[in-house]
This record gives sequence, structure tokens and C-alpha cells, in this order.
Amino acid sequence: METHRIRPEHNLVPVNNKFLKKIFRIIYYSDTPGGKIFDIILLILIVISTMVIMLETVPAIDILYHRVFFYTEAAITTIFTIEYLLRILSVKNKEDYILSPLGLLDVLSLVPFYLGMVYPDLHYFMIFRMLRLLRIFRIFNLADYMNDGHYIVSALKESSRKIYVFLLFMIIFITIIGAAMHVVEGGSEGFTSIPQSIYWAVVTITTVGYGDATPSTAIGKFLSILVMLAGYSIIAVPTGIVTARFREQARSCKACPRCQTDNDLDAVYCKKCGEKFVS
Amino acid sequence: METHRIRPEHNLVPVNNKFLKKIFRIIYYSDTPGGKIFDIILLILIVISTMVIMLETVPAIDILYHRVFFYTEAAITTIFTIEYLLRILSVKNKEDYILSPLGLLDVLSLVPFYLGMVYPDLHYFMIFRMLRLLRIFRIFNLADYMNDGHYIVSALKESSRKIYVFLLFMIIFITIIGAAMHVVEGGSEGFTSIPQSIYWAVVTITTVGYGDATPSTAIGKFLSILVMLAGYSIIAVPTGIVTARFREQARSCKACPRCQTDNDLDAVYCKKCGEKFVS
Amino acid sequence: METHRIRPEHNLVPVNNKFLKKIFRIIYYSDTPGGKIFDIILLILIVISTMVIMLETVPAIDILYHRVFFYTEAAITTIFTIEYLLRILSVKNKEDYILSPLGLLDVLSLVPFYLGMVYPDLHYFMIFRMLRLLRIFRIFNLADYMNDGHYIVSALKESSRKIYVFLLFMIIFITIIGAAMHVVEGGSEGFTSIPQSIYWAVVTITTVGYGDATPSTAIGKFLSILVMLAGYSIIAVPTGIVTARFREQARSCKACPRCQTDNDLDAVYCKKCGEKFVS
Amino acid sequence: METHRIRPEHNLVPVNNKFLKKIFRIIYYSDTPGGKIFDIILLILIVISTMVIMLETVPAIDILYHRVFFYTEAAITTIFTIEYLLRILSVKNKEDYILSPLGLLDVLSLVPFYLGMVYPDLHYFMIFRMLRLLRIFRIFNLADYMNDGHYIVSALKESSRKIYVFLLFMIIFITIIGAAMHVVEGGSEGFTSIPQSIYWAVVTITTVGYGDATPSTAIGKFLSILVMLAGYSIIAVPTGIVTARFREQARSCKACPRCQTDNDLDAVYCKKCGEKFVS
Repeated sequence: METHRIRPEHNLVPVNNKFLKKIFRIIYYSDTPGGKIFDIILLILIVISTMVIMLETVPAIDILYHRVFFYTEAAITTIFTIEYLLRILSVKNKEDYILSPLGLLDVLSLVPFYLGMVYPDLHYFMIFRMLRLLRIFRIFNLADYMNDGHYIVSALKESSRKIYVFLLFMIIFITIIGAAMHVVEGGSEGFTSIPQSIYWAVVTITTVGYGDATPSTAIGKFLSILVMLAGYSIIAVPTGIVTARFREQARSCKACPRCQTDNDLDAVYCKKCGEKFVS
Repeated sequence: METHRIRPEHNLVPVNNKFLKKIFRIIYYSDTPGGKIFDIILLILIVISTMVIMLETVPAIDILYHRVFFYTEAAITTIFTIEYLLRILSVKNKEDYILSPLGLLDVLSLVPFYLGMVYPDLHYFMIFRMLRLLRIFRIFNLADYMNDGHYIVSALKESSRKIYVFLLFMIIFITIIGAAMHVVEGGSEGFTSIPQSIYWAVVTITTVGYGDATPSTAIGKFLSILVMLAGYSIIAVPTGIVTARFREQARSCKACPRCQTDNDLDAVYCKKCGEKFVS
Repeated sequence: METHRIRPEHNLVPVNNKFLKKIFRIIYYSDTPGGKIFDIILLILIVISTMVIMLETVPAIDILYHRVFFYTEAAITTIFTIEYLLRILSVKNKEDYILSPLGLLDVLSLVPFYLGMVYPDLHYFMIFRMLRLLRIFRIFNLADYMNDGHYIVSALKESSRKIYVFLLFMIIFITIIGAAMHVVEGGSEGFTSIPQSIYWAVVTITTVGYGDATPSTAIGKFLSILVMLAGYSIIAVPTGIVTARFREQARSCKACPRCQTDNDLDAVYCKKCGEKFVS
Repeated sequence: METHRIRPEHNLVPVNNKFLKKIFRIIYYSDTPGGKIFDIILLILIVISTMVIMLETVPAIDILYHRVFFYTEAAITTIFTIEYLLRILSVKNKEDYILSPLGLLDVLSLVPFYLGMVYPDLHYFMIFRMLRLLRIFRIFNLADYMNDGHYIVSALKESSRKIYVFLLFMIIFITIIGAAMHVVEGGSEGFTSIPQSIYWAVVTITTVGYGDATPSTAIGKFLSILVMLAGYSIIAVPTGIVTARFREQARSCKACPRCQTDNDLDAVYCKKCGEKFVS
């Protein structure tokens, strides 16, 4: 069930044509030699493509290799387009694929190139092509890796309510501090408005500290000290929340054979249904 | 008992008038459709009001919408004033409301606007209006959220003694380091006085590192390295204190009445002796 | 035993004189009304004295109150001198007091003032007077607070071996990175020598990031990214070490009535001597 | 078995010559007085050598002591060369030593000096000599320390899969943020290309915050705030992963042979059933 959410292709079925069935297996699965090679080539193309998009923005490099870059992009996009068409052709329940998260990602990685030829600014959206790297989880039959990703996400999700409460307090605190600093440091460069001061407050409380805005008055410096110490102290709070959640997840690791509830390793009776464990 | 501290309105009783009783239910509770709508409108008004206060301080925007901003503020403040009067009118034990934390917050969100018309500087205090967002906990019947907020606060409070000890050591350490750096880096810009050097020490030890004051002598740089490593290391201490507290709170939650074993809060049967819990 | 180390005054005995016995009780203990008042006055004097030392270094303030500051310092030092003499006079085993940590601290807070009159530079050492604040633990009968301080220190001490290993790896890593950056960024301002580059490496790895030295070459920036990610990742290591220690300390909290070994809360038999616990 | 991996010299055997056998014992072991003295001298030479390499790069110092530095380096390298030859001579299975990690390290600490005389730039590689400090673990019979190093490494290794997943997400996130900031802040100094913006993203997300590149547009600042808050929040994730691993390692250490309860490593009796452990 959970795997379905992560591997949406699992509910996809091939069309009833021998050749396309083979294609389907190669493209959607990685349990055949052909499928593995296909996936690895895809992976390499994504990495190359991302590199090219990045290097194109460096003027000194772009001047030398502009043409190489363009043709590489064109070639990779063509391959991706063919791949996309094959994916659609070889699947029976086409809508299920097209509207699946990975399916939408596949289009998203194509469109910007074609649009970029008309509106150059949209060209940058090609970077979203990188999200296809998430397919990496499917290659190398990494079911375990997927569980780990799931593990991290679920640990964050289950403690999300505590994190919301924490964020609300943070937002209120940061806004009030921002307003206070705007009043105190009104004249200084980085505190000309409340949003500007809020930017400073975030820079400070997250301990990033660019230094593009720093307090110049004595009161401002004193307030800053309090904000920094606050930031330094509350860094513990999200850590504590997430860590506690990790701990809990790691702890309850024995499933009751009757009701499937997670029990502590040292439990003798299931805490939910009272079933006695056979050790 | 604890809920009383968080929801002070719970001990409030409506006046003996049919219409005001209805108002009371809408304003103070969110369990009726009217009460929910009222709360959501309040929430939206608070957010709009905060936005306006913030944007007013951005000259480029204020110039264009100064009038819109002023009238929005005036309108919202008027609504809040009417709301406040209705709150007072509809409650029987008026003093209990007026002197409750949320009651005082309600006045605090009104007064700065009126005072700001006489003393423009006090206008900024309107930002405290934002604290009314804490009412968010009451809307969407978020009893659970409240517990989480309570959970975080109590985790901080119960380990507060350890945090005091930690802070005392920090203050002594920072002051002595500040004095030392003032002596060593006397001539440099950011170390002209001990308070200035203390500001630098806090910026450094919290790993914020603005860079508005940096050591220039070799000895100063060496001392800085020690301070940075100290800051980097002791970041673990508050984390450890708070995390340990979270862990304890999460762990020892329900003792089995028969065998005294600590069980998870959601346990139905004792994990050791199989005793069924009476809930 | 442990308390002796923290409260060295406990092994001190008063001299055999009725008046000095009273003085002894007031100075060394805080369980009488007189002792409490004495301690609080001491506390206030230390804070005032520290403030004065700090403010003296701010030229704008010193110019106005130079005289006030000097006389305050002189007065407080005189009081501390009298206190010190009374401490020596009223105690029988004088050496035990004079050579105790707190005893040495008491002299250290006096000497710099007198030396400062001859060698003005030594005047700054008066800041060590602040260490007398550690006496704060004795006031308000804060036996618990002392335990907490002890708790933090012992948690750090018991995991110190792991921290040494960690530090050795850090030092090797930072030095090699420093040398590499010196080679790569040789020309840039902040990397003129290896020690300079090591300073940069510490600033970076501890996530302080002043910005007084930043890489300018592409390779330098790439190396920096690796260093930053390393610093960001290994911040978890000391946290993990200390947190694990806290956890262990918090966990073993039931002493065996026979052998005094700390046992887990859920233990039924003592893990050392096998004694069955009566619950 | 595990010690073999850390102490590769254990599988080395001396040659069949009385004098070289003695040399072998002194060089490879530290359980004799001679061996201990040898190890300590080695340690001191490594530290001196590292210091010299570092100070040579400081022009002000190098000008004064250039000759002293060169002769010190030459002398120490000569000693290391003789030591290396003796190591080879005294060991029977010479290949096992030469190709062992520590053996390769020993050559690596010699070669740069000789190469540096021909190609001065390679001289800097002498800093790798510092890695010989890892031999410190062998001196002072620090078997325990080795375990601690092993403990940290294994904690990192066993949670490495989670860390890989985490890093993949980070890389994707940082690249997309970098591209977005390049589009938004195109004109600004620190965002001239995507790699440049990625450098900024890493500086920001790791909370280093040099300030050599800072957003100047309103949208850029807003995006930065999100990135900073993300960095501040996810700092908890690696901490959580590693901490959870530490905890697990520390906790489930010895299962009772009778009742399978997890007991502490130092338990003599099972805490649940009282079974005595055979050690």
C-alpha cells in the first residue's frame, strides 16, 4: 500500500502487443538486464543535462562551448521525448501514468526546452529535469533506500504538528523582533522597513549571519545578543522534536503477530491486544 | 486545571440576557458554526492588519497606498474595538476577562492605534496585535495543538534549571573572553570596548558570525578559533538537555497498576504482565 | 565526598572566639538571615563591579563618569579586601581556605586592582572578579543547582574520550584543508599562509562564517562547499555523543538497596548483584 | 578481527635476525620501554614537522627562519627515511607492510620533500605527513581510544544509507534553489551563474553565511528566508539520524540467554529474570 504511493508505476499494465510489452518491461521495471541498462543511461543523461544547464550560465564557459551545450541539450531532450512517447504507447491505462507524479515530472522535464526556444527565460525551468533523479530510488532495486526516505519523511510528518506550533511561535517572535529593530535601528541600512528587519531577524536567528545588515546602535546590539542567544537555544527544539520521534520509531520494533501493533523489544505481552509473545 | 491556564475564557460565564448569551457563545467559543466563522474572520483580520503595518514601513509601497493602509487599519481597529466591547458586555465576571492574559492582549491590540494618532512613534506597537494569532489555537478545535504547545513549553520549563546553570557559565565565559579580546585586539574596529567585544563574542559563539567585527592580530585569531570550537561544541549541551527531557516525557508515561512497569501512553495491556488498563 | 569538591568551605572550622564565630557563620554559610543578606550584598557588588569594569572601556561613557567609576571600584575593592581578611581571621584551618579554589578566586579578584595602579594594563584582570559569581550557587540554598552544574560537567567529562578522538580527527582534517586551500587560493587575501587558511577552515567548519576570508577561485569554492557540508554533518557527532551520555545518565535511576548500583527503572533484579527489587 | 583492520601491523612478522628482531619490536610495537620512547619521539617529530610546514608559509616568519626551517625539514625527513628503511628491513612479509594503509602513509610523508626539491609546488603535500598522527592511537596502549574512534565511524557508517538519501534530497533541493536564485537575482554579484548561486545556497543552508553573496531583491530575500528556515530545520535530520544510531548502539547490547531481555553491557544479572551471565 505504502509502496504504491512511492512507486506509482506499479499499478500500470502493459498494452497487449508483444513488442510494446517488452518496451514496457524495459522502461518501467529495472529487473531485466535491458531495464537496468536503460535506467543507468537515463541516470547519466539526467546528470549530463543538469551539468549543461548549470555550465551554460557561466559566461566564460558558455562562450567556448555554447554550440556543444545547445546540441547536447537538444539531443537529450529528443531522447527524453522519445522515451516519454514510448512510455505512453506501451502502457494500457495511459491516464494513470500521465497523471501520476512521476508522469507529470516526465513532461515537466521536456516542456521547458521547447518553450525556451520561444521564451528564453523559461529555459531555466529545465532544471526541474533534475527531479527525475528521484527515479534513482527505483534503479539498483533499492527498496531499502526507499524505506529510509520514507522513514525520514514520516518522522518529519508525524512530528509536523509540533513543528507547526513551533513555527507559529517563531513567526510571531521574528515579526515582533523585526518591528522592534526597525524602531531602534531605523536609520541603519539594513533596517529601513519591517520586512527588511524581519529578513535580518531570520538571518540572525538561524545563525546564518551574512553581515549585510548589522546593528549599529547600542540598544540594537543588545537586542541582537538576545535574538542570537534565543536562536542558539531554540535550535535544540526542532532537533529535540525530530530526535524524539526517531527514537520512538526505532524503539517500537516488534510487531504483535495477532494485531500487528508495534511493541517494544522488551514487551512480553502485546500492549494493545494482550497477546503473549512466544520468544 | 492546566487547560485553565491556557484557555482562561473557560471560567467566564455569560450575562443573563438571551441575545448577549448568543454573542457570548459566538465570541468565546468556536463550537457553533457562527463561532467558527467569527474566529476565522478574526484570524484573517489579524493577518491583514499585520501585513499592513509591515508594508507601511516600506517607503516605495507606502507612497502608493498610504491612504488604503490607513483606512484598512482604521476599519480593522474599529472592528476590534466593537469586538472588545461585545466581549466585555456579554461576560458576567467582567474583571476575570479584562485581567486575563488574552483580555489584556485584546486591549494591547487596540490602544497603539489610538495612541499612534497622537504620538506617531507608538504606532509601531500595533505589531503586538499579532499576538492575537495565539487565538489560532482555539479555532479548529485544536485541543491537541494546545497540548503540543504546552508540551514544548513544559519541556523547556522543566529543564530550565539546567539551562540557568548553563547560561550563568555562558555569561561568565563570554564576559571574560570579551575582556581578553578587548586587550588583545584593542586597536581593531570591533573591539574598542569590552561591551563591543562581548557583542563579538556572542556573534561568534552562537555561530552567527556577521563579520562586522573580526580579529586582525594573530593572537586574536587564535583566541577566536578556541571560542568558535567552544561554541561549536557546547551547541550540544542545550540540545542534550532539552532532548533528554523530551525523551523522558515521551517515555515514562503510564505505570502499570499491577507491576509498575512503564508503558506507552497508548498501551491497553501492560507489556510485562499483561494486565488490562482501565481507561 | 563530591560536595566537598564543590563546596570546599565545608571542611572549614571557625576559630574559637565568640564574635569571629558569628562572622564565620555569616560569611561562609547562608542559612542565617545575616548570612543571606551578606551573600546578596556580595552578589550585587560583584555585578556592579563587573559593570563598571566594562563601562570604563567605553570612551563616551568613561569620559563622563571616570571619577565615579574609579571611586566605585576602589570602594568595592576595599569591601572585598575587608571581607577577605575577615574570612582568613575567622577560619581556623587558614591554609585550607586560602588554597581552596574559591579562596584563590577571592585573592584573584583583589590583586588586579592594586596592581592596576602601578601597571594600568593589569587592570583588566579585574574581570576575573566575575568568577566570584560562581558563589551564586551557594546562596538561596541551591543544592539542586549545584547538582545540575555537576550533572552537565560530568556528562561532558565522561564522554571526553570520544570527544578527544573526535577533536584529533578534526585537527588533522582542518590542517589538511587549510593547506589545500592555501595552495588553491594562494593569491587571495584570507589565504596568504597555512595558519591563515586554518583560521578560515575553522570559521567555515563551525558554520560561523565571518566572511573576512572567502574563496574566489572555482576550485576554492568547490572545496568550500565540501568543507561546509562536512561541518554541517559532523555537527551531529558531538551532539550525538553528549546526548547519548545524557540519556544514559537519565536512564539508570533506581539504586539497588543492597549494592547501590544504578539500575534501569524497569529492572526487576539488580543487574549487578541479582537482588530482587521490592516494588 | 576488527583490531586487525585498525592495526594492520599485527599480521607482520619479523625477519629471522636477532638485531633486526629487536628493531622490529621497537618500531612496530609500543609495549617495550624502547618502543614507547620511539613512538613518542616519532610523535614529536611529526608535530614539529607540521608546525614548520605551516610557519614556512607565513612570509614574516619565513624570512627570519627560512634556513632553520629547511634544515629541520631535511633532518626530520632523513630520520623518517631511515625509519622507513628499517621498517622494510626488519619485516619478513615486506609487501604486507608496504601496501598496508599505514605503510603507504609512511611513503606519502617522505616523497613530497624529495619531489619538492624539483617541483616546489609539490612541497605542500608534506602536510600529509600529519596523517601519521593517526599512529597516536597505537602509543599509550590506547585500545579504548581505538574503540571510540571505531564507535564513531561505525555509527556514521551504519546510518550512511539514511545519510545518502538525505544528501540526494539536499543536492536536488540546493540545485533547484540555486537555479531559482540565479533567475531572480540574475544581476547581483554573487548570482552570476547557477554554480555561483549553488555556492550561495550551500553557504546559506549550512548556516555558514559568509555574506560574500547576499540577495538584493525583495523576492530573493523572501526565497532566502525560506532557504534559511529550511537549513535551520533540517539541521535536525542528520543529528536525529546519528543520535538515534548512537542510542541504539548504546542500548541493545547484551541479551539475556534465558529471557532474551536486553541488558546493559555491564550487567551481571538479567534485570528481568535474575539469570546470572557467564562472562
